[in-house]
Amino acid sequence: MSNNNLNFEIQKLGKCKIPSPMKSSHFTNDDEHVIYETNFKTLKKYIDKGETPPMFEKAGPREKIFFDSSKIKCGIVTCGGLCPGINDVIRAIVYSLHYHYKVRTIYGFKYGYEGLTYKFQHNPIELTIDMVADLHEKGGTLLKSSRGPQDPEEMVDILEQMNVNILFGVGGDGTLRGLNDIADEVKKRNLKISVIGIPKTIDNDISYIHKSFGFESAVSEAKKAIYGAHIEASGAKNGIGLVKLMGRHSGYIAANATLASSDVNYCLIPEVKFSLEKFLISLKSRLEYRSHAVIVVGEGAGQDLMKSQNEKDASGNVKFADIGLFLNDKITEFFNKLNTEINIKYIDPSYIIRSIPANPNDSVLCLLLGHNAVHAGMTGRTNMAVATWNGGFTYLPIPLATSKRKKIDPDGFLWSSVVSSTGQPDLRP
Amino acid sequence: MSNNNLNFEIQKLGKCKIPSPMKSSHFTNDDEHVIYETNFKTLKKYIDKGETPPMFEKAGPREKIFFDSSKIKCGIVTCGGLCPGINDVIRAIVYSLHYHYKVRTIYGFKYGYEGLTYKFQHNPIELTIDMVADLHEKGGTLLKSSRGPQDPEEMVDILEQMNVNILFGVGGDGTLRGLNDIADEVKKRNLKISVIGIPKTIDNDISYIHKSFGFESAVSEAKKAIYGAHIEASGAKNGIGLVKLMGRHSGYIAANATLASSDVNYCLIPEVKFSLEKFLISLKSRLEYRSHAVIVVGEGAGQDLMKSQNEKDASGNVKFADIGLFLNDKITEFFNKLNTEINIKYIDPSYIIRSIPANPNDSVLCLLLGHNAVHAGMTGRTNMAVATWNGGFTYLPIPLATSKRKKIDPDGFLWSSVVSSTGQPDLRP
Amino acid sequence: MSNNNLNFEIQKLGKCKIPSPMKSSHFTNDDEHVIYETNFKTLKKYIDKGETPPMFEKAGPREKIFFDSSKIKCGIVTCGGLCPGINDVIRAIVYSLHYHYKVRTIYGFKYGYEGLTYKFQHNPIELTIDMVADLHEKGGTLLKSSRGPQDPEEMVDILEQMNVNILFGVGGDGTLRGLNDIADEVKKRNLKISVIGIPKTIDNDISYIHKSFGFESAVSEAKKAIYGAHIEASGAKNGIGLVKLMGRHSGYIAANATLASSDVNYCLIPEVKFSLEKFLISLKSRLEYRSHAVIVVGEGAGQDLMKSQNEKDASGNVKFADIGLFLNDKITEFFNKLNTEINIKYIDPSYIIRSIPANPNDSVLCLLLGHNAVHAGMTGRTNMAVATWNGGFTYLPIPLATSKRKKIDPDGFLWSSVVSSTGQPDLRP
Amino acid sequence: MSNNNLNFEIQKLGKCKIPSPMKSSHFTNDDEHVIYETNFKTLKKYIDKGETPPMFEKAGPREKIFFDSSKIKCGIVTCGGLCPGINDVIRAIVYSLHYHYKVRTIYGFKYGYEGLTYKFQHNPIELTIDMVADLHEKGGTLLKSSRGPQDPEEMVDILEQMNVNILFGVGGDGTLRGLNDIADEVKKRNLKISVIGIPKTIDNDISYIHKSFGFESAVSEAKKAIYGAHIEASGAKNGIGLVKLMGRHSGYIAANATLASSDVNYCLIPEVKFSLEKFLISLKSRLEYRSHAVIVVGEGAGQDLMKSQNEKDASGNVKFADIGLFLNDKITEFFNKLNTEINIKYIDPSYIIRSIPANPNDSVLCLLLGHNAVHAGMTGRTNMAVATWNGGFTYLPIPLATSKRKKIDPDGFLWSSVVSSTGQPDLRP
Repeated sequence: MSNNNLNFEIQKLGKCKIPSPMKSSHFTNDDEHVIYETNFKTLKKYIDKGETPPMFEKAGPREKIFFDSSKIKCGIVTCGGLCPGINDVIRAIVYSLHYHYKVRTIYGFKYGYEGLTYKFQHNPIELTIDMVADLHEKGGTLLKSSRGPQDPEEMVDILEQMNVNILFGVGGDGTLRGLNDIADEVKKRNLKISVIGIPKTIDNDISYIHKSFGFESAVSEAKKAIYGAHIEASGAKNGIGLVKLMGRHSGYIAANATLASSDVNYCLIPEVKFSLEKFLISLKSRLEYRSHAVIVVGEGAGQDLMKSQNEKDASGNVKFADIGLFLNDKITEFFNKLNTEINIKYIDPSYIIRSIPANPNDSVLCLLLGHNAVHAGMTGRTNMAVATWNGGFTYLPIPLATSKRKKIDPDGFLWSSVVSSTGQPDLRP
Repeated sequence: MSNNNLNFEIQKLGKCKIPSPMKSSHFTNDDEHVIYETNFKTLKKYIDKGETPPMFEKAGPREKIFFDSSKIKCGIVTCGGLCPGINDVIRAIVYSLHYHYKVRTIYGFKYGYEGLTYKFQHNPIELTIDMVADLHEKGGTLLKSSRGPQDPEEMVDILEQMNVNILFGVGGDGTLRGLNDIADEVKKRNLKISVIGIPKTIDNDISYIHKSFGFESAVSEAKKAIYGAHIEASGAKNGIGLVKLMGRHSGYIAANATLASSDVNYCLIPEVKFSLEKFLISLKSRLEYRSHAVIVVGEGAGQDLMKSQNEKDASGNVKFADIGLFLNDKITEFFNKLNTEINIKYIDPSYIIRSIPANPNDSVLCLLLGHNAVHAGMTGRTNMAVATWNGGFTYLPIPLATSKRKKIDPDGFLWSSVVSSTGQPDLRP
Repeated sequence: MSNNNLNFEIQKLGKCKIPSPMKSSHFTNDDEHVIYETNFKTLKKYIDKGETPPMFEKAGPREKIFFDSSKIKCGIVTCGGLCPGINDVIRAIVYSLHYHYKVRTIYGFKYGYEGLTYKFQHNPIELTIDMVADLHEKGGTLLKSSRGPQDPEEMVDILEQMNVNILFGVGGDGTLRGLNDIADEVKKRNLKISVIGIPKTIDNDISYIHKSFGFESAVSEAKKAIYGAHIEASGAKNGIGLVKLMGRHSGYIAANATLASSDVNYCLIPEVKFSLEKFLISLKSRLEYRSHAVIVVGEGAGQDLMKSQNEKDASGNVKFADIGLFLNDKITEFFNKLNTEINIKYIDPSYIIRSIPANPNDSVLCLLLGHNAVHAGMTGRTNMAVATWNGGFTYLPIPLATSKRKKIDPDGFLWSSVVSSTGQPDLRP
Repeated sequence: MSNNNLNFEIQKLGKCKIPSPMKSSHFTNDDEHVIYETNFKTLKKYIDKGETPPMFEKAGPREKIFFDSSKIKCGIVTCGGLCPGINDVIRAIVYSLHYHYKVRTIYGFKYGYEGLTYKFQHNPIELTIDMVADLHEKGGTLLKSSRGPQDPEEMVDILEQMNVNILFGVGGDGTLRGLNDIADEVKKRNLKISVIGIPKTIDNDISYIHKSFGFESAVSEAKKAIYGAHIEASGAKNGIGLVKLMGRHSGYIAANATLASSDVNYCLIPEVKFSLEKFLISLKSRLEYRSHAVIVVGEGAGQDLMKSQNEKDASGNVKFADIGLFLNDKITEFFNKLNTEINIKYIDPSYIIRSIPANPNDSVLCLLLGHNAVHAGMTGRTNMAVATWNGGFTYLPIPLATSKRKKIDPDGFLWSSVVSSTGQPDLRP
């Protein structure tokens, strides 16, 4: 099916003929799908035209699988920045491979894609049940991580040489593109290697994924920083608490942490430009009226207000100017000129947030993402990622996942809820 | 629309002609709907027959409202057992009434439906912003609670007398039925009183609601008790940790807490009967093999194994025999007979779980449920509840919500995930 | 020195002639002592009589040690009930033996004293740095535990056979007596085996020890149960929250958790008898006045009110009748007779409390207790325990530690603070 | 008594003739003292010379008091930076004044000493039981705070005018000096105003106080930031986690958080100078050997390495150059020159730490400090602070408390424990 230039079809390595060794009361059929659109008005347009609406394959174990699972080798790699739950995902994959499919050899490639090259000489480790049994209790990633792509040819050389049949990659946008390159190279060589992504984005900004793992844990921890900002702000005369939260292109953490707290007066996100002048004038009124204020700013907000640096990090992402420090300076300057004493406290909790273990709800999500990634790989599906949509687990083609970024709609429900919760005025330029 | 004997139509008191005083960039239209079914195979049956599939009204503020909001009085009542987030809901309703709609008089009826009668003499309190500002930080309910129904005629007498135009009721199955009775009485008298429910069920067992508020917080806290059980079990010879969790008819808390922990060997839920003998024999093998075991049991599980008591509590619910104590005894007895020394530790964390404050994710949910309850009431909708479905907020007729109980499908995805996570054998009789 | 029948002298295996391999800027001298009594009035009596006041040896690394540390073998055993911090202590001992003294062989005896016998066939494990590196993050004990004594001769046979030179025992009153028996047997055989205790008592009831490890963590966790009880009590009409806390002979947890919470109306402890009648009458007034009440009861309280059972557990401790269930019944009965509807919620959080990991302050305490236990063993001290007194770490002869139990003084500062914090009347018979 | 130029005598306003209205089983006598020195060797020098050793008055309620408590007015002021537990102290004072002594008028002066002046026009509030009932659950200070001194004459004018008989001041070094100035002015005017300090120092750096309130909570929260630093460091190649913790002159938080964590490789404190070169060379070896490192630095450490700024804050404290950012830069520079890729993550959790609520142990401490402050004020003691020493509560003359700062002894037990726990080399210049 290919409506609206969307391709929801998953690539497969071949036919599934082998009965699954998994004991399950519940196998999913290949013809089960979750529709993309749940708004009836939009859906009706497809129906009226006699078109099949866009939809995703439903994730889950299949009765027949592609690989002779007890004979294959698998590999796992984790890339990019930390996010709560990576270790849960690693553990879930190892457990499912071991217990559900009797896979005996599972490699952990270390330091992201570097571990799939020769030059960095990071030797892979062999992952066992014992090694991962308590893994979910720890933040970070057992396999360590690195940023940036590596040569797909070299990576496929290594997979071939080590006889890896399924590669699981945990990572964000860039990592998924890397998996896509690997899958393309695998196809070119006509190899039987399945490439499965488990999308990781603490910012929750990957499209066609309802809520990415770790996001909720991040919001919970972010709430604590906002609590601190609020207590500091309300404990001093003209106290201002300023919290910078993660979110380079999408302000989901800032928006949700604002809703989860009740103490935020201004929430600034990348998707909604703001006028510095309007903001400062409003802040002045707020201080006059209530004598303290709490500001939450997503790291990608207000980038247009600062002179761009055009630097890039190892992943090729543009380095962002620091909107937190910028606002800290501008606010201080503004009130200095007015001769008004303020007490501003700037909090940047990013590394504390990224490194916590997953909360229980994220642990469940990671467990089921890991299981479904394994189920997908075993059926020879490739160049796809596991996702959640409309309350179920789905399989998502990587090219689709990376086709555009998920963003907050400034005219939508979430942002209007934030604005009506903070009571902030329209600050757009 | 009325497919499959489902009635998804919401009752209304009249036409909405008054412009909403709410400042919002985002008003929802009355013709926006969220479809019930996202499985394409099921959905296709409706399409093929030319039928409109079942769907829910989308929640949200409307541009035109029914009540002249600054002139009306509203009331809130909370009923039944405690659940994380009730105070968040109270706060969200008060804030939305006050800030979004300029309502000046908001009554809090105390001790559940008792507060809506004459005989108990619980005087209502007037809720102010100051009173509820920090409310979300506390567990429980500011308005206190009681179980059981009261006479709808007397309750409507009081609403009439106090000139209450919108009544918000926070409660479970029984409470929603009570609201339905009130709405019926209101209709009979041809009054303009809107009756809006905010479904509360820590067990997550109300139909047509994806995830009820407080459920996730409860799962998180339940995980801690399971952790304790696991540590106790693994710290002693033949250590057995036994945790009873809430769930009278539906085992969602037990199932999700099992998935969130990694330490559970047996999860027993009301939806899946088990043979005591099979269970004990399996437990014996487990102890021989691993020398400790962790068991999680939902309170409604195994009721058929105990002699029924047929007692009922004040809400009219059948009093359950205590499956936790029962299993504790039976396990002890069984191993005594075998002359095997065991160390069993029984944990019942229910009251600790019920009384915690909402976690950040539940706080967001409660906030938006509260707001949408207010938006619903303002438009004169009545005899309905606010809900979430397929990732969005919806309006749900109370008769539909109470028509059947939501249960775990023993052949479905969730239960098969639990079984494949615990590795427990089929224990069915 | 031997005042007041107290013997503060520590036994030693011999002279310390070997330079310590430990790099330290700070060695403690053998003549450094911490005085027992800090109340000047009491102290003056000794001074006036020209007597040396009772005092403890100061703990710490010595410049000269008894054992050639790189050549010896050591063993660790953990006994009795769980307590937060046991794993921290194990880890601290292993780290200090390994890094400070280059000890290469450290045995972990499993399941308490059973692991030091032949008949139970629990093979000891060899503890390595890798095995214990993350141990402090988990509750419970890596070495597992059991209750009750074993034959000292058999245990010393095993220590001899395995060439163990220092045995570290983590446990309570009974465990310390066991260590004393082992030390006596060692002496009888004229062996060079040092026996060092690390006193573990979640009840904080061992004499001459200011605050035992895990106690503070236990109080913190107990506070959460009291919070739950308070929220439940204040959420219902005539709500009564009843929490049973640990404390068989000493009510320290109950007393401190009461001070840490602000919601307790009655604190009942083993040291202060109470009249059931006076208690119930006072509770009635409280409900009439405030309509809810929170009761905290230490498990050893009110034992005289119940018919004794004279049963004993495996450790030889008298089995206590359950004062929590007893009060639950008596309160219910009392108000039933009065025809007063109450809502009583009984919470027994003991296993949840015992199994948590140590809090940061307890982690520091455990670390330093572990280090000082090792320093003590290395100098050939024996039949002694590590302790804290007057803000410093001390060495305490085991016979002294077990000579009497530490209890709350009903006429002292702590209990009077509890009473003035709860506002409870004098309930003594 | 006045040994060693120490004056341990407390000033009093007059004789205590009024029977205390407090119901207590336990009154403290004025002749009860806690000795300062518990090391017997040091103590013996006094005894041998026939001198009375230095000692503190024991805190506690007295049978006779100075003020006719039901007729007086009291005031509370909180000054300086936030610290966990201030609200607990406010609450404890209000509760004790109200319930123990029936004081009916309690003023809260807002924004620190500014609230005791005319020019800032911060009107005092009247504190009631209802206002403070749940106060201990929140971080910060209800009364808000400010830095810096105000004119003692003006402050005493206000106390006189408002008929305040006891002023309770919560604050650090500077605040205590301010209380001393007020007490001097009160004495000059021959007024009957008692001035009582409750020492607040998150850094734990006030002399003659064993452990200041909030310190333990701060250490616990600091441990979380170190956890994050450790996870980040060990998740990346040559990962370096750098955490700056509070401690301008004394490194107690850094030292204790290091002991509480097990992941710190370098702990740098103000009391122990370090050579930047030695540090960087050691760090290089560490990375070569283990490929990651965690560094904890107290904010006052390494000030000599940076060009002094000589700026002062509103409290008159020298503004410190930021050692965290300085080390961040120097480390980056150093490895850049070596062409070694590192991943450094800098975390500054200070505001998050300062603003948390007190942990349960600190809550107990705050409660009893508050009670004892009230007991002290009621007896007409003045120019004194409440403290803890050798396990008991004491009264401490303010001039003594402010005579010198408490610091970690580089040759003492604590620092040697830190060094032996981190394994860090001697980095002194």
